[in-house]
Amino acid sequence: MNANVPDITQNNGQTEFDRFQDHYPTRRASDPAVLARSEPVAYGSAHVGPLDQLALNQYAESGFIHFDHFFNSNELNMFLKELNSIRTNQSIKSQAGSIFEPNSQEIRSIFAVHNKSEIMHSLCYHPRLVLIAQQLLGSEVYLHQTRINYKAGFRGQEFYWHSDFETWHAEDGMPRMRAVSCSISLTENTHHNGPLMLIPGSHLSFVSCVGETPENNFKSSLRKQDVGVPDDESLQKLIEHRGIISTTGPAGSVTFFECNMMHGSNSNITPQPRSNVFVVYNSVRNRLVAPFCGLPARPDFVAHR
Amino acid sequence: MNANVPDITQNNGQTEFDRFQDHYPTRRASDPAVLARSEPVAYGSAHVGPLDQLALNQYAESGFIHFDHFFNSNELNMFLKELNSIRTNQSIKSQAGSIFEPNSQEIRSIFAVHNKSEIMHSLCYHPRLVLIAQQLLGSEVYLHQTRINYKAGFRGQEFYWHSDFETWHAEDGMPRMRAVSCSISLTENTHHNGPLMLIPGSHLSFVSCVGETPENNFKSSLRKQDVGVPDDESLQKLIEHRGIISTTGPAGSVTFFECNMMHGSNSNITPQPRSNVFVVYNSVRNRLVAPFCGLPARPDFVAHR
Repeated sequence: MNANVPDITQNNGQTEFDRFQDHYPTRRASDPAVLARSEPVAYGSAHVGPLDQLALNQYAESGFIHFDHFFNSNELNMFLKELNSIRTNQSIKSQAGSIFEPNSQEIRSIFAVHNKSEIMHSLCYHPRLVLIAQQLLGSEVYLHQTRINYKAGFRGQEFYWHSDFETWHAEDGMPRMRAVSCSISLTENTHHNGPLMLIPGSHLSFVSCVGETPENNFKSSLRKQDVGVPDDESLQKLIEHRGIISTTGPAGSVTFFECNMMHGSNSNITPQPRSNVFVVYNSVRNRLVAPFCGLPARPDFVAHR
Repeated sequence: MNANVPDITQNNGQTEFDRFQDHYPTRRASDPAVLARSEPVAYGSAHVGPLDQLALNQYAESGFIHFDHFFNSNELNMFLKELNSIRTNQSIKSQAGSIFEPNSQEIRSIFAVHNKSEIMHSLCYHPRLVLIAQQLLGSEVYLHQTRINYKAGFRGQEFYWHSDFETWHAEDGMPRMRAVSCSISLTENTHHNGPLMLIPGSHLSFVSCVGETPENNFKSSLRKQDVGVPDDESLQKLIEHRGIISTTGPAGSVTFFECNMMHGSNSNITPQPRSNVFVVYNSVRNRLVAPFCGLPARPDFVAHR
C-alpha cells in the first residue's frame, strides 16, 4: 500500500485525515442545533470480551450499562479508605488538579488520581474495567481522564446537564465519539443524595451548544460549567422523548456510559456523600488532536495527551 | 372564675401567660442543642373530622399525612392555570411578597397568594383542607402564611433542611407547635425534580440553632436561608435514626406536615418544574406574640397577625 494514501481499512473507516476534521461543530453558531451521531456506539464484538451480545445491544441503544455489585467488599473498603485519605491529604489538596465547590472551600473533584495514588492507579487499570472498555471501544484504550468526585453531604452542589464529549471535542480535540466513561460509586447512591441522572439514548444525537469558549475556561468550568451547556429547548425535547434514569445502587456499583451521553445530577443536602471515582477510557484510535475551539489544549491532568 | 386568674382549663393546659414564655430557645446559645417536644402533635379526635384514628396516630408518630389524589382534574387544572398566570403577572411580580431565586431573576416564591387571587383564596380555604387542619390542631384555624413555590425547571435551587417552626417561633413569635403546613403539588413530583424530603418523626424534637438573627433577615432568608439552619451533627443523628422520605406523587397530591418537621429539597435540573402551593394553618389558640428573637415582627405577607 502506498504510504501516502491514508489507510482507510483501519479505524472503522476513519482515515488519519478524518481525525482533524470537525464533525461536531459546537460553540460557534448563534443558535443551538441537534446533529445526528455519525459513528458506531458499541465498536467491539461479543466474541472478544466479558459482555455478551445482549449487553452490547443494550449499551448501543441506551448508551449505558450498570452493574450493582462490581467489586467485593475487600476491594471496596480499600478504595473507600484511599478516597478519604486523599481528601484530607494537604499536599494533594494544594495541587492544580484539586477543584473546590463553587461557593466553598470544600473539595469537589481531584483529577488525575491514577497518578496520585497506587491504589487509585490499580482501580483505574482494574482488568475487568479495562476489558469492558476495550470491548465497548473495539480497540486498545488509554486513560483520557480520571478523577474523584466527592459530592459532599449537606452542601454537595449539582452538576448541570452536559455531554462530556461536547467539552472533550471542543476543549481537548477529541475527534470522535469513541470513548467511554466509567463511574465507580464508593458510597451508596440513593434517590436522595443527588445520584447520577442519565437521559438514555441521548448519546445518539449531539447537542451543539451556543457560546464561545473563554481562555483558560477549565479554571472555572470544573467548579461550575457555563459554556458547553445545552439549551433548554433541546434538553426538554430530549427528556420528553427519552426520559431520565437515576443510577441508584449500593456502594461498589459501576456505570459505564457513552462519552456523548447527556447526564447531570442534582444537589445533595443529605448527610450521605455521593463519592465516586470517574475513569474515562479513550480508544487509541481516537487520540486527541488540537482543540476544535481553537484555543490551547487544557492541562494534562484534565485531558491526557 | 376570677378574671385575674388565667383559665388553665382552655387551650390544652396552656395558659395565656404561657404564650409569652420561650419554650424553645434558639439562635441564642453558642452551641446547638436538641430539645424534646413538650406538647401534643395531633390535638383533635377521630370523632370530629375527616381523619380516622389510624390516620391521626400516623400523623402523631411520623408527623405527616400524604394524599396522592386530593383534587379532581377540573379543580387541578383551574389551580394550575392560575399558578402560571400569577407567575407572569407583572404587577404581582413587583410586589413585596415576590421572592427571586438566589442567583437569578427567576421567581422562587410568591407570598400571601390568598390575597392576590380569588382562585388561590378558594384553594387555601378549601373546606376539605380546612377540616383536616382543624382536626389536626383541635381548634379553629387561620392562615399563618400562604405561598406559591415555583421550583422552576432547569435552574430550581434547593431548600436546605429546616424546621418552619424554628423560624416562626424566633422571627414571628409563634408560641407553640400547634400549626400544620399543607403542601399542594400542582405538578408531578418525581425522584428527579427535587421533591420535598421529610425526616419522619423529626417533629418530636426541636433543634435549637446557632447564630443570631440579623435585622430584616427575611429579605435574604426567603431566597436562601443562612440563620435558623440546623447543625450538621444534629441532622446526621436525626437522619441516621429516622431516615428520609421523598413525597413523590402525581399533580394534585397533598401533604400535611407538622410545623416542626425537619424538611428540605434538592435542586431541580430537570425541565419539569416542581410547583406547589404552600398553606400554613395555625390554631387560633396559638396566635403570635412578639418575636422571640427580640427583633420587630416580619411583614404581614410572611406571617399574618
